Amino acid sequence: MRGTVIHAPGDIRLEERPDAAMTAPTDAVVRLSATCICGSDLWAYRGVEPVEEPHPIGHEYVGVVEQVGADVRNVEVGQFVVGSFATSDNTCEICRAGYQSHCVHREFVGAAQAELLRVPNADGTLVATPGMPDADLIPHLLAASDVLGTGWYAADAAQAGPGKTVAVVGDGAVGLLGVLSAKQLGAERIIAMSRHEDRQRLALEFGATDIVTERGDEGVAKIKALTGGLGAHSVIEAVGTQESMMQAIRATRAGGHIGYVGVSHDVELPGEELFFTGVHLHGGPAPVRRFLPELIDLIWRREIAPGKVFDLTLPLDRVAEGYRAMDERRAVKVLLQP
Amino acid sequence: MRGTVIHAPGDIRLEERPDAAMTAPTDAVVRLSATCICGSDLWAYRGVEPVEEPHPIGHEYVGVVEQVGADVRNVEVGQFVVGSFATSDNTCEICRAGYQSHCVHREFVGAAQAELLRVPNADGTLVATPGMPDADLIPHLLAASDVLGTGWYAADAAQAGPGKTVAVVGDGAVGLLGVLSAKQLGAERIIAMSRHEDRQRLALEFGATDIVTERGDEGVAKIKALTGGLGAHSVIEAVGTQESMMQAIRATRAGGHIGYVGVSHDVELPGEELFFTGVHLHGGPAPVRRFLPELIDLIWRREIAPGKVFDLTLPLDRVAEGYRAMDERRAVKVLLQP
Repeated sequence: MRGTVIHAPGDIRLEERPDAAMTAPTDAVVRLSATCICGSDLWAYRGVEPVEEPHPIGHEYVGVVEQVGADVRNVEVGQFVVGSFATSDNTCEICRAGYQSHCVHREFVGAAQAELLRVPNADGTLVATPGMPDADLIPHLLAASDVLGTGWYAADAAQAGPGKTVAVVGDGAVGLLGVLSAKQLGAERIIAMSRHEDRQRLALEFGATDIVTERGDEGVAKIKALTGGLGAHSVIEAVGTQESMMQAIRATRAGGHIGYVGVSHDVELPGEELFFTGVHLHGGPAPVRRFLPELIDLIWRREIAPGKVFDLTLPLDRVAEGYRAMDERRAVKVLLQP
Repeated sequence: MRGTVIHAPGDIRLEERPDAAMTAPTDAVVRLSATCICGSDLWAYRGVEPVEEPHPIGHEYVGVVEQVGADVRNVEVGQFVVGSFATSDNTCEICRAGYQSHCVHREFVGAAQAELLRVPNADGTLVATPGMPDADLIPHLLAASDVLGTGWYAADAAQAGPGKTVAVVGDGAVGLLGVLSAKQLGAERIIAMSRHEDRQRLALEFGATDIVTERGDEGVAKIKALTGGLGAHSVIEAVGTQESMMQAIRATRAGGHIGYVGVSHDVELPGEELFFTGVHLHGGPAPVRRFLPELIDLIWRREIAPGKVFDLTLPLDRVAEGYRAMDERRAVKVLLQP
């Protein structure tokens, strides 16, 4: 099969690799209909995370089940499925509490920019769609695999809902889908922080009511000005830097909630400042599996169109071009067709 | 009147000062029946916090209303009242959300180790008891003013409740009353982390089911061993140091809740580690006012006896001796009689 391998920062190659194959009776193998490039893949691509040795990459996927292990009960060969980047048994105490991304049997998916993917813990990870999706639904279902699931989790962690003012730090695909999620959860007012016109347009289409172009302290001052001096009830943080975390913390009112899902890089939270803010802080790797049934249903009924974050579609063999486009911010998110 | 002034680290004096007097029509003046020394007073006493110039000190109080301003409606001269260290109007948006310690009109109390105390925002700060309390109830009511209210808030923020295993980091008065609070909130199992026999005894009396004497990584390993390798559902942090915060974070299972109320000193939380824990973090200065009616009711009906944390009672003129006893850990908490 063809699969993507990162050799070093900036060095992405599509290579001929052994077909993905089951290694445990709880595995499944999925023939991918679509995969994509995540903002978090760029950390390695940009050299912010080390690439110790060449390794397969990619963790977002939808496709058709091609093989299932002897112990798999919940999905069948031929079904169209959506899965999460963190596999889960969906039966342990942590999973039952809704934190499948921390399942005691978790394995992270890391070879999804390919034709075939082995999925561990298939029963607790994969969710079948009601039938074979129309082609136009595939980007939306693919978004559910991570970027929508993560934005949704952030909105949920930030307790976005009726009567709430939600601010969103980060206008990447996760931030934009945080806007969509907050809207779906019933938020009254959604402030997108973005300085890029194309992303602002998408944020407004997804339900943003206000756009703030300022960043850092100025951005915080703007959020306060829009919220009677108090700060937002709910803040979604979808970047993962020191600046974005502090912007999120400072833009939240006392007693408010921050849902942070940008993978933290070189972040140190000052304890004393955090203490005196009185905010709630919750986040981390999103338990996408918790939300998948609901998200698939919303997509299937065409109530949401999260796939709009894909503004560039390429065949898998042009994966390197996709990374370049995202790295250079020419694309919000790139869909790859195997 | 006589009032306590801190002149420098280690230098506490009871002095003759002007009588506390109203400065706004929303003030009240309370003649104190009892006051006490807080663990947080020791930060200045020990020189961890600077003492820029001599200033009055103390923020826990109960007593009888002696004067009320023209705008005060909710309390009357002659009533016995309990108040919080953070005054609040109890009507602003932040107060109505239950975060009175962050009220837009908040003023911190800082002169309560005295005979008389001016209380700003009297209507939204003071809660009257159903009548004049019996003398034996006074220590319990005094505890509600901060140390119980803070422990209760920590237990609430940590979502202690039925079916939950709660770990408590810190065996000072707040940690011990965190144990009592978790018990009242219905926690199934309460693990007190303490290496002092007298405090262990009180923790067990307040409802602890397990005692862990280890600290740091060893303490975390012990909590994990007691919780099937997962960590506690709920962790109360009642110290405020880097070690205690990391102990709390690492002892919590993914998706679990930390209620942190130890005033943070020199704490930097590592973003990446926090991210991958998936815990909820909430705390800060406790909105004691939110809980006062319920706490007073529990004390009035003699269902809880939080005043047991006072293991030394001194007349106010021996306040310096009280600080020394707490600093040298000869006392858990010192009650002062004006």
